[in-house]
Amino acid sequence: MASQELTELRASIDSILDEFTKARSRALTDIGSELQPVASAMSDFITDGGKRFRPIFAFLGYLGTGASPRHEVLRACTALELVHVCALIHDDVMDGSDTRRNKPAIHKLFQSLHDDQSYKGDSERFGLASAILLGDLALVWADRLLVESGISREEFISAQDVFSDMRDELMAGQYLDVLEGALATTSVERSLKVARFKSGKYSIERPLHFGAALAGKPEFNDAYSRFGLPLGEAFQLRDDVLGVFGNPKVTGKPAGDDIREGKRTVLIAVTMENADQSQRKTMTEALGNSLLAESDVTQVQEIIIKTGALDEVEKLITTLTQESISALRQSPIDEKICTVLEEMSVIATQRSV
Amino acid sequence: MASQELTELRASIDSILDEFTKARSRALTDIGSELQPVASAMSDFITDGGKRFRPIFAFLGYLGTGASPRHEVLRACTALELVHVCALIHDDVMDGSDTRRNKPAIHKLFQSLHDDQSYKGDSERFGLASAILLGDLALVWADRLLVESGISREEFISAQDVFSDMRDELMAGQYLDVLEGALATTSVERSLKVARFKSGKYSIERPLHFGAALAGKPEFNDAYSRFGLPLGEAFQLRDDVLGVFGNPKVTGKPAGDDIREGKRTVLIAVTMENADQSQRKTMTEALGNSLLAESDVTQVQEIIIKTGALDEVEKLITTLTQESISALRQSPIDEKICTVLEEMSVIATQRSV
Repeated sequence: MASQELTELRASIDSILDEFTKARSRALTDIGSELQPVASAMSDFITDGGKRFRPIFAFLGYLGTGASPRHEVLRACTALELVHVCALIHDDVMDGSDTRRNKPAIHKLFQSLHDDQSYKGDSERFGLASAILLGDLALVWADRLLVESGISREEFISAQDVFSDMRDELMAGQYLDVLEGALATTSVERSLKVARFKSGKYSIERPLHFGAALAGKPEFNDAYSRFGLPLGEAFQLRDDVLGVFGNPKVTGKPAGDDIREGKRTVLIAVTMENADQSQRKTMTEALGNSLLAESDVTQVQEIIIKTGALDEVEKLITTLTQESISALRQSPIDEKICTVLEEMSVIATQRSV
Repeated sequence: MASQELTELRASIDSILDEFTKARSRALTDIGSELQPVASAMSDFITDGGKRFRPIFAFLGYLGTGASPRHEVLRACTALELVHVCALIHDDVMDGSDTRRNKPAIHKLFQSLHDDQSYKGDSERFGLASAILLGDLALVWADRLLVESGISREEFISAQDVFSDMRDELMAGQYLDVLEGALATTSVERSLKVARFKSGKYSIERPLHFGAALAGKPEFNDAYSRFGLPLGEAFQLRDDVLGVFGNPKVTGKPAGDDIREGKRTVLIAVTMENADQSQRKTMTEALGNSLLAESDVTQVQEIIIKTGALDEVEKLITTLTQESISALRQSPIDEKICTVLEEMSVIATQRSV
């Protein structure tokens, strides 16, 4: 399996999501035609874009144990993408982030619906309520896709343990993330802990464990952790860099969105640690200022570069990625799958979106 | 089984929730001591109060098929209470409702935490984000309690279908409820449809089906629908009456909260239909006015009484309850359980909280 197969794998995941979402949309509009906007928004959000990292890692985790590919296992792995959809929809509400993939975030979409239709009451509240419900629905759909995937009962029971822990950790990590913003943390150590829980475990390690559980091979968990944990951190660090330096046309989010939201990332923590008094003052004023102009974002970017923080984080990404790749070489993971995992580790940490 | 046994059943459900919540709280604080407020808030919310209607109806649905009581089945039924916890936490955010059971709603609790600790940033946003995450956590915990209940794999698979449909319908019903508020509906027919989906199916019919599925007896579904659907509507109508006329000390919500939130209930729709021009004007101004004074609430209450709407809705509650009870008499449901269901139908529709 190489790049070609990775492309095919992603296409299969897309097609599972497409088919599943069509069926769920029909079930919604069967309840009432008033639910058409919910059905459309769910379909568009789920099928339009997305890197599908979590299902891919889960399926590779399954194959890496030596198990043979099966479509029902891929369906089960795809459930993880729907958990992620919930996380994204709710995350945008919590962060007050109005754009996702160059489109209005779900709460903004329903706020506009309210405005366009001249509904009564507060359109912002309507947007908020809709986004909460659509996120909940994605979480419930994840569960349904897993249950209806066609895997055996034994496979289901063993995967469910990881599935539960993973979702608990996701919610806990999200809370820690919100809390660090409120604590205005500038500790590198604490930001790394959040990165580890919020994304490190949830995006890569747990999906790999989920795959191992589906194969009934929990003895692979250690090897997957040694590969997945450092890679997960590197993945989150790349996210943090893109949140400040990403090209809006590629990321689909306005430049400097993370600064406006006041995210306490490792990149910011390192910058604060290295900054002189005047730089620290500029940073403190910019962080969490939702009205920050583009020129202010440029100034913040310059400080992050000048303090050497960007270089440090880039080096950290490289070190962590190398650590994860060398863990692969000493592991019992199927050799062909190791090659794909290595390819995935490059994609996850050197991406621009 | 009579009142005494119903009390014992509720106590068993409480103790299952208590034990489960303690274990989950420990798991949270193991991730980080910063999660202590999340663990405490979840424990308090889940174990403090609640009528436990959904687990009770589910377990009665199981017993009504002639199946023998088993503790693991009761644990599985108790999962429904955690779905309800998610619905309540998110509902309070969506409605902007600040009080629940005489205590601050979850978003208000975390807003206060932010204020008390002098955290950085917007305390309201912190409260909102926390409540979204705690609701999500309740939904995930529901799933875990069901999976870990100890029921057999066969029981699990058959219950899961109902569990999925029930949660889909809940989210759809909640959206319809929010939408009717935005449409400022005054149609009795439409308000009844929302009542049916939002609460009728979700609170009583689906829990009964869930119980029948656990017993492997879907052939009881029709009988349970004939009993559960009218009772569920009556249950929701009682909720609507309490939302306007309830004693705040008993309901734990400020008087007239539903009026301030602009809820489009059947009670309001009937009032609008019967009202003269001046009464309709007063009602329209009051509905959704979050700053409504207590004297204005009294005026609205008087209009609802004078127009005969309260009487009509009370009659409707009686008719629906009688309909559900007479459906019991012609059903194949176990006779002893029919007596308990009849008792429950009185509790569900003649309550003051």
